Amino acid sequence: MKKLKDVGERWITRYINSTLREKVEKLSRLSVGDDAIDIPSPQKILVAIDMMVEETDIPRGISWRDVGYRAVTSTTSDIAAKGGKPIAYLVSLGLPPNMLLQDFEELWKGIIEAAEIYGGVVVGGDTNTSSKVIIDVVCIAEPPQRLVSRSGARVGDIVAVTGLFGSHSAGLHALLNNIEDDTAIKAIEKMLRPVARIKEGRVLSEYATSCIDSSDGLAESLYILSESSNIGFRVDHPPIDVIAEKYSEKHSVDLLDLVFYGGEEYELVVTIKPEVWEEACREIEEVGGRLIKIGHVIDEPGKIYVRWGGEFIELRKRGYTHFLESSFSR
Amino acid sequence: MKKLKDVGERWITRYINSTLREKVEKLSRLSVGDDAIDIPSPQKILVAIDMMVEETDIPRGISWRDVGYRAVTSTTSDIAAKGGKPIAYLVSLGLPPNMLLQDFEELWKGIIEAAEIYGGVVVGGDTNTSSKVIIDVVCIAEPPQRLVSRSGARVGDIVAVTGLFGSHSAGLHALLNNIEDDTAIKAIEKMLRPVARIKEGRVLSEYATSCIDSSDGLAESLYILSESSNIGFRVDHPPIDVIAEKYSEKHSVDLLDLVFYGGEEYELVVTIKPEVWEEACREIEEVGGRLIKIGHVIDEPGKIYVRWGGEFIELRKRGYTHFLESSFSR
Repeated sequence: MKKLKDVGERWITRYINSTLREKVEKLSRLSVGDDAIDIPSPQKILVAIDMMVEETDIPRGISWRDVGYRAVTSTTSDIAAKGGKPIAYLVSLGLPPNMLLQDFEELWKGIIEAAEIYGGVVVGGDTNTSSKVIIDVVCIAEPPQRLVSRSGARVGDIVAVTGLFGSHSAGLHALLNNIEDDTAIKAIEKMLRPVARIKEGRVLSEYATSCIDSSDGLAESLYILSESSNIGFRVDHPPIDVIAEKYSEKHSVDLLDLVFYGGEEYELVVTIKPEVWEEACREIEEVGGRLIKIGHVIDEPGKIYVRWGGEFIELRKRGYTHFLESSFSR
Repeated sequence: MKKLKDVGERWITRYINSTLREKVEKLSRLSVGDDAIDIPSPQKILVAIDMMVEETDIPRGISWRDVGYRAVTSTTSDIAAKGGKPIAYLVSLGLPPNMLLQDFEELWKGIIEAAEIYGGVVVGGDTNTSSKVIIDVVCIAEPPQRLVSRSGARVGDIVAVTGLFGSHSAGLHALLNNIEDDTAIKAIEKMLRPVARIKEGRVLSEYATSCIDSSDGLAESLYILSESSNIGFRVDHPPIDVIAEKYSEKHSVDLLDLVFYGGEEYELVVTIKPEVWEEACREIEEVGGRLIKIGHVIDEPGKIYVRWGGEFIELRKRGYTHFLESSFSR
């Protein structure tokens, strides 16, 4: 089996460029592989960057193709949260010389596949030697007319999400523990192919008072919005995915953990004025998405109350945070 | 001594954001630290990305501040080669939990320092846990009126560079071998603080027929231009830095290696029509730079001849390439 060190960087660069050339030619005056690349842009651009490191961000048991797909999805989700429409992607890779060629090719295919789904063109990047795989994805996007920050939530606003939560964490749990029943398989499938909410984000840029993606978990997203907007939340209807509920029962995993502290779900969490709620829902449905009301903004800065098992509990703040010792056990 | 794991990602993010806030506010409608950030752009933008990985790209003995400075310089040099004017930078960091806080702060200061020198604003990025330091820098720039590719060199064009070569490799050699005489110290100083040729690149975008930066070594740059443009080069006047020459004599290091196979020098290598040569030189001098004629484009695709010690030799192709076994010995 050939490894990257058998072919060298030049081969890798040629391989990458050959998969990009046709589309980049239509977009740029420079050719793929030049020092820099020019991109048509609207008068303003929106950019986001997100790095994945094999050691901490890539669970074992995921195919390289899915790893590539998820890396692009993760950055795209940040763009979606601000209502952007992807134009171009740049991808920096750190690759171990002992990586199998076919694994690298699968990784790259996943990257290209996701970029195509989100309507952006991969225009180039950089390759490097490293001991573990590193994937850093930049997305350059067309911003919407109106930009929604994290700080605009006001008391009385509805808080809503673009999908249900918990199945991703259940899938991760199943994968790491080799659980393979029907529920586990459904959860894993969903976890491997999250979808960045580009279309929903575009619509929400017209209606939302604040917006964030949920890549670090629903609880973390609510906390960030509450801190940025200086408000609190009452969550009457936690957005529990039925797969997560079943998985929780079968395998005795805490459902609150699955739903609120999971992460790697790329739904949007937004606040919206009640007056425009129905209109926003209608427009989201028109683009094929959905908007799920989970509660309200309240006048208690930093507090998040969730109706859980018949009573209200206060959500503790313990999102996933890198660097603290505990994060390594994950 | 405090380490990153003692303070956590949130502290790091706050630290980073506090150093960026003031300038980003002037540039963007969104705040620093939001999912994505909007940037004013001309109708077209120019982008480049370059990753540095501690294991392979960061020689021992360099201060973290210089590491940060050099990472930004490296990406900026790609932009300079295409005549771009930096607008904004995004920086993705992989950081080991055991890294000392003060080392991280120095690294970040070097990043900010370089961005300011090059006239761009660091608008955000991403932080991650990794076993070794990773610095991935994106530069978003205003493209020049005219974009110069790698493929426009024609027979009879002058080939020129924006600076002398060899002192960087000498500096690296001195650093790795703990050599500390006067020449070595001069070489090390020059190596630690290379300058991306933004002003020169802007001028050259009006005059050059092809242009590339020399981050992988002068020989490699000449080879890439020769392959892209399907021509060859005769180098009558190798651009030897006097520091490299002295160092070579004192420490028995091959001068040809230092000058042609060094890398990490961020000069530009360009071809220019003889008719506009003098005008180009004048304009480059006006912006404080210099243009050094080293030879001509010849009609022998892929061949590079260099006048060396009274005779012409053919340059072998052996730039630094990642992934091949040999690259690890570097």
